[in-house]
Amino acid sequence: MAAGNNVRKRVVILGGGFAGINAAMGLAKLPVDITLVDRKNHHTFQPLLYQVALAVLSPAEIAQPIRSILRDHQNIEVLMDEAVSFDLAQKRVRLKTGALLEYDFLIVATGSTHSYFGRDDWAKLAPGLKTVEDATEIRRRVLLAFELAERQTQEAGVHPPLKFIIIGGGPTGVELAGAISDIARLYMARDFRHIDPATAQVEILEGSPAILAAYPPDLQKKAIDQLAHLGVTIRTNAHVTDVQPGYVMVGNERIDCTVTLWAAGVQASPLGKLLGVPLDRRGCVIVDQFLNPPGHPDVFICGDLAHVEENGHQVPGVAQPAMQMGAYAAKHIGRMVARDLGSDGTGLNEPFHYFDKGDMATIGRKAAVANIKWPFKGHWSGFPAWIVWLIIHIFFLIGFRNRLAVFRQWAWTYLTFQDGARLITGSQDLPGWDSEYGIQRDTPVEQQVTPTGTR
Amino acid sequence: MAAGNNVRKRVVILGGGFAGINAAMGLAKLPVDITLVDRKNHHTFQPLLYQVALAVLSPAEIAQPIRSILRDHQNIEVLMDEAVSFDLAQKRVRLKTGALLEYDFLIVATGSTHSYFGRDDWAKLAPGLKTVEDATEIRRRVLLAFELAERQTQEAGVHPPLKFIIIGGGPTGVELAGAISDIARLYMARDFRHIDPATAQVEILEGSPAILAAYPPDLQKKAIDQLAHLGVTIRTNAHVTDVQPGYVMVGNERIDCTVTLWAAGVQASPLGKLLGVPLDRRGCVIVDQFLNPPGHPDVFICGDLAHVEENGHQVPGVAQPAMQMGAYAAKHIGRMVARDLGSDGTGLNEPFHYFDKGDMATIGRKAAVANIKWPFKGHWSGFPAWIVWLIIHIFFLIGFRNRLAVFRQWAWTYLTFQDGARLITGSQDLPGWDSEYGIQRDTPVEQQVTPTGTR
Repeated sequence: MAAGNNVRKRVVILGGGFAGINAAMGLAKLPVDITLVDRKNHHTFQPLLYQVALAVLSPAEIAQPIRSILRDHQNIEVLMDEAVSFDLAQKRVRLKTGALLEYDFLIVATGSTHSYFGRDDWAKLAPGLKTVEDATEIRRRVLLAFELAERQTQEAGVHPPLKFIIIGGGPTGVELAGAISDIARLYMARDFRHIDPATAQVEILEGSPAILAAYPPDLQKKAIDQLAHLGVTIRTNAHVTDVQPGYVMVGNERIDCTVTLWAAGVQASPLGKLLGVPLDRRGCVIVDQFLNPPGHPDVFICGDLAHVEENGHQVPGVAQPAMQMGAYAAKHIGRMVARDLGSDGTGLNEPFHYFDKGDMATIGRKAAVANIKWPFKGHWSGFPAWIVWLIIHIFFLIGFRNRLAVFRQWAWTYLTFQDGARLITGSQDLPGWDSEYGIQRDTPVEQQVTPTGTR
Repeated sequence: MAAGNNVRKRVVILGGGFAGINAAMGLAKLPVDITLVDRKNHHTFQPLLYQVALAVLSPAEIAQPIRSILRDHQNIEVLMDEAVSFDLAQKRVRLKTGALLEYDFLIVATGSTHSYFGRDDWAKLAPGLKTVEDATEIRRRVLLAFELAERQTQEAGVHPPLKFIIIGGGPTGVELAGAISDIARLYMARDFRHIDPATAQVEILEGSPAILAAYPPDLQKKAIDQLAHLGVTIRTNAHVTDVQPGYVMVGNERIDCTVTLWAAGVQASPLGKLLGVPLDRRGCVIVDQFLNPPGHPDVFICGDLAHVEENGHQVPGVAQPAMQMGAYAAKHIGRMVARDLGSDGTGLNEPFHYFDKGDMATIGRKAAVANIKWPFKGHWSGFPAWIVWLIIHIFFLIGFRNRLAVFRQWAWTYLTFQDGARLITGSQDLPGWDSEYGIQRDTPVEQQVTPTGTR
């Protein structure tokens, strides 16, 4: 049964991402009992996930068990489970394993997932980057591509061109492209005897007219220059019409590739649909200025799942607004609880405002673009922007036990070009390769690469 | 074609474990060309693998790409591939991807794998511990067991007993049992709200009359005492007759359990059978005093795959003899190459001798048993033995870039009880559990555990 006014209020938080963790932290000091539910046992520091995908960091360096993060707060319990249905009228959430959670306040912060624009069959061929599992799968494919080329060349003297295609030119696509280029040109150079990893090609396919659409034009231009410097090619207005093992189609043009990665689109967590409230076309829940869906002042939608507008623009689905929304929901619930306990209700009309400190994306190991809006305004690029990126990300890893370890690992890797965590685990197969013979299908002889190796 | 006397000799090494890596290191300074072939891209420091399985260390801390280990030796190439057939007369090895490697000398060091005594269907129900993938699978199952019990108790107020069964009481079984007990009693104590992780039971089922059969009786006794102190129960003469989801059968007795792990038996790598030379009953290649199968002075079998006897006892399949065999094979090949290049053939009659420095196994986080034979003789146990174990293992991680990082991680984990790498990745299912409802099947109501939690 839902608790009355005179017993401790129950708050259920769905999702242990930036929004959910920040909400839980904010609520921890209030006289409420909190249940946080997540499908995973760990919180993932998503801004650094691409570094796991490209073998610089290990999963445990950027992911931490949610239980551990929240362990000192005795009024928080964590369940590794998943919501499957809601009864907003009765204030109840049904979990996948059958449990029924009753709440006084509900925070839904289950984030977003890849959108393959209706072509879910592409997911296996072009993995995206949202989870630790995604990151290790991308790492496996990228590293395996070099291994396969090496053994083909050992046997036949040639290998098909190593080509990595990244579909999508937003921050994730740009960061992946830069990091793959780094791996190929710098870190792997001394590891192979037959192939020259630096011949690997990296190409971004962007459907719109510009990469980094959310950035001002001068920084877009800088990003293009910096990517070109790393040998990354960019095609804009490139509409991918098919993804197949070993190639993608752009319109009627076939582009052969070794590995395809997806950074093109996200859609809201499917949980939004189960709430029975209005959604936008990407499945985000349309909320009011208090982050409530219309008519549900006890339900808060936070993070990527929320459609919030600020000055006529939708607040982007990145870490910063998610953290702010989670903190806001906790604060607002605190005010409602205080009112019920007899306080004067001060601040109950204070709406959510997104405080935009800016955006940044790294481009390889020593460049970045940063559109800084606070504490000063400025468009930064190149190495200075990269240093800013580094400092901010180390700062936000605070709370992560291992932020110093991560910094040390970075410093080591960036200064010495030594391997970070270059492990291939799982299958030895790649889509488009025949696992028995290691030959990429359908590559015409004249396109094969003949390395001029030392052996 | 095989090279003649006046060109550089070709050495093919199969396997990048302790034997293969040590052979490659030994051969690197000789005027030979070396090809090392391994199915994995990484060398695994197996003595610490159980620490990955129990979430103290991350995979990248105890595994390193073989390419990186050997990168500075320009006469070594590494192929991520697998031998599938041999022609010892023509001196050729066929790889899975089709390549044909010709050699003057062949070193086969492909190690061993789990033996389920003909019951390969048990492999999925009771994973063993040989690879990084095995370790993360064990980690997943152990951590998931606690998560499932927590959510059952949150819903129903009770959970089936948490019971971890380890089949096999050798060093691996003892180390796994001690580490699981530690996790449950120490590291997880503060993380859960409903269950008491310390109520988890850990039991070793050993088929023979004694655990740690290779150790002297006084150390066996110490190990039993130290395990009892950790709450680990031991059944000897316990012949497992069946392994099923949620239980194992010992004779006609059914023992319900949450997670079953396999540490009972190993068999030689199946590659031994393909050589067409005499094997022992476990599939190990019977070699002469030069590590050659009879009649093949150009073929060396090293590590777990070799059946070598020293003073009438078979040399055990652990790291120390594997390293010594690899080094010996390199040295012996060096002498043969020198003879062919006109040297006097000094030392060509020197046989392999195993120099046994002793054995040790940890029991939890601050005890061990050590049967030390060099540089002094002694039976050590408890905390002093654990300190010896720690020093030796850090020493042998030399060559691993990250040995200091590992030491720091250990020190941190052991001193603070903080989580190391407690991530659950992959599926959320356990054998014997219904993923939809999270209920372990068939547990009678009277056996359910009712925690007296604080919530």
